Amino acid sequence: MVGRRPVIGVMGGSDATEEECERAASFARLVADEGYILLCGGRPAGIMEAAAQAAHAAGGLVIGVLPGTRDDPAEVSSALDVAILTGMGEARDAINVLSSTVVVACSGGPGTIVEIALALKGGRPVVLLGWDGPSRLFPEHMEARQLRVTWTPAEALAEVRRILAREG
Amino acid sequence: MVGRRPVIGVMGGSDATEEECERAASFARLVADEGYILLCGGRPAGIMEAAAQAAHAAGGLVIGVLPGTRDDPAEVSSALDVAILTGMGEARDAINVLSSTVVVACSGGPGTIVEIALALKGGRPVVLLGWDGPSRLFPEHMEARQLRVTWTPAEALAEVRRILAREG
Amino acid sequence: MVGRRPVIGVMGGSDATEEECERAASFARLVADEGYILLCGGRPAGIMEAAAQAAHAAGGLVIGVLPGTRDDPAEVSSALDVAILTGMGEARDAINVLSSTVVVACSGGPGTIVEIALALKGGRPVVLLGWDGPSRLFPEHMEARQLRVTWTPAEALAEVRRILAREG
Amino acid sequence: MVGRRPVIGVMGGSDATEEECERAASFARLVADEGYILLCGGRPAGIMEAAAQAAHAAGGLVIGVLPGTRDDPAEVSSALDVAILTGMGEARDAINVLSSTVVVACSGGPGTIVEIALALKGGRPVVLLGWDGPSRLFPEHMEARQLRVTWTPAEALAEVRRILAREG
Repeated sequence: MVGRRPVIGVMGGSDATEEECERAASFARLVADEGYILLCGGRPAGIMEAAAQAAHAAGGLVIGVLPGTRDDPAEVSSALDVAILTGMGEARDAINVLSSTVVVACSGGPGTIVEIALALKGGRPVVLLGWDGPSRLFPEHMEARQLRVTWTPAEALAEVRRILAREG
Repeated sequence: MVGRRPVIGVMGGSDATEEECERAASFARLVADEGYILLCGGRPAGIMEAAAQAAHAAGGLVIGVLPGTRDDPAEVSSALDVAILTGMGEARDAINVLSSTVVVACSGGPGTIVEIALALKGGRPVVLLGWDGPSRLFPEHMEARQLRVTWTPAEALAEVRRILAREG
Repeated sequence: MVGRRPVIGVMGGSDATEEECERAASFARLVADEGYILLCGGRPAGIMEAAAQAAHAAGGLVIGVLPGTRDDPAEVSSALDVAILTGMGEARDAINVLSSTVVVACSGGPGTIVEIALALKGGRPVVLLGWDGPSRLFPEHMEARQLRVTWTPAEALAEVRRILAREG
Repeated sequence: MVGRRPVIGVMGGSDATEEECERAASFARLVADEGYILLCGGRPAGIMEAAAQAAHAAGGLVIGVLPGTRDDPAEVSSALDVAILTGMGEARDAINVLSSTVVVACSGGPGTIVEIALALKGGRPVVLLGWDGPSRLFPEHMEARQLRVTWTPAEALAEVRRILAREG
């Protein structure tokens, strides 16, 4: 990455709680305010939609990496600037994390666990926001600080900044 | 696509001639001037690089969909705003064409033929710019005007506008 | 490939003519008789189905690499020994050709052209059986004999044997 | 699946301990003796290699789904009957689990967690063999018995049989 803006991948379940969605939205606003690009799964549901809409409303650039092939409002968030249509189903999770400078995981079931584990395997730093369940599964990555736990959007942003400063 | 800017996929070989690269660059400038997003294969070579650099210099938003996993200057054009790192090798060609509102193919060998054929199969309109070789292979798509031949950047832009007007 | 049986990828359209399907079936029987593994797109339609059923009936091992995620008789040929379910749509074409020692393309529209072009790009030898349309598009690969034209199943088998003898 | 043999996906880390590899090998022999097809990641390392070699020695059919594009002994286990070369890196994990009737996960780090989570998301039953770490992460799938914990190869085989009897 030479001169490009950092891409912050915001991941999380499509059936997140209202509280989880609000936390993701608050974080997404901070991402946009910071001038970072927000990348998410792009579907109009759960954490993806909350983060995309919030970053878009705050003037940020929003990229969605989608499982399907059609640019259809039922499948694609209206908040995206660019819809990457992969047609690859869940395999698109690998693209989400590889394309993110930092991955921030906000909650979730198996789909989010896939993204966290792919990010760790692919060498991308992961910040958990508002939960710590997966931290027990990856003690070595916690110790190496490739995986970090935060509880508030401001704390997550501070971690992202620290990671970017180190990598820059 | 509701309110999003059209994405023009500019495809072509990594070992294109200087003339082919200049034609792609001219077209890419028109794409940027028009306010469209330019999408390409993202590597620093051939048509991809010529189009990305020209659109970037003209102030356009440039997305690269890459075969590899690393954001490394040797593999990724410096002109990209967003690098989508797929780690999927040639299978990323499917993503390039599905994510493009219109595909413009500027020259090329097997890789470009893959993209043209995938676009036709995936229902995306294809404009050939500066060559007509593949037109003989797809006579039905020529007749249905899903595949069109143009010879100058201005002519290609006019076709893109016509396609977008019809689809919008 | 050390000691493994060659994998012959038989490609072709899902809406092939009866004549094309019969030619593919005859070739598939020869493949099975030879002890080669037959690989195809795995759907119950066109060339794929004709080749899979013929090789299966002749006692051959048949692998299908499928675009979908479900092992459903409406989507998956009953002649397969192994169904590789990719969930990746057309991007699975890349897997078909990479997994084939030799690709034999029997007819077809854009989907088959994708497979031929991906095979050429990926360094796999390609034998056209019963048509020569794509040969004009790839004159360099014709000259280098990475792409060859045949008109009968016996002729195609002879080419496959020659290629395997050279590579073995 | 109509009349096809079940495919048992054996997953696990490439840097597994000797004890883990022996347990995977014992299970793989039972899989082959039962007449099931064994599917694994196909590389000559860790659980994949232990399971592939054991099933192969016991006369079983062994399929490897590989991340790379080359059929090279340094990258591909010598025990495979068929090497599916995807060229898709980690995204091939999605193919592994979708192509398995039952997934048996023998140990592992992030890569294995990816496969377990993808299997659960894709509706495939998962049997853990010799560990239970991931069970805490997916309590709902444990309760629904889509995820089960076993400690010996015989116990894992009994679970696989139970699952197949129910699905058959």
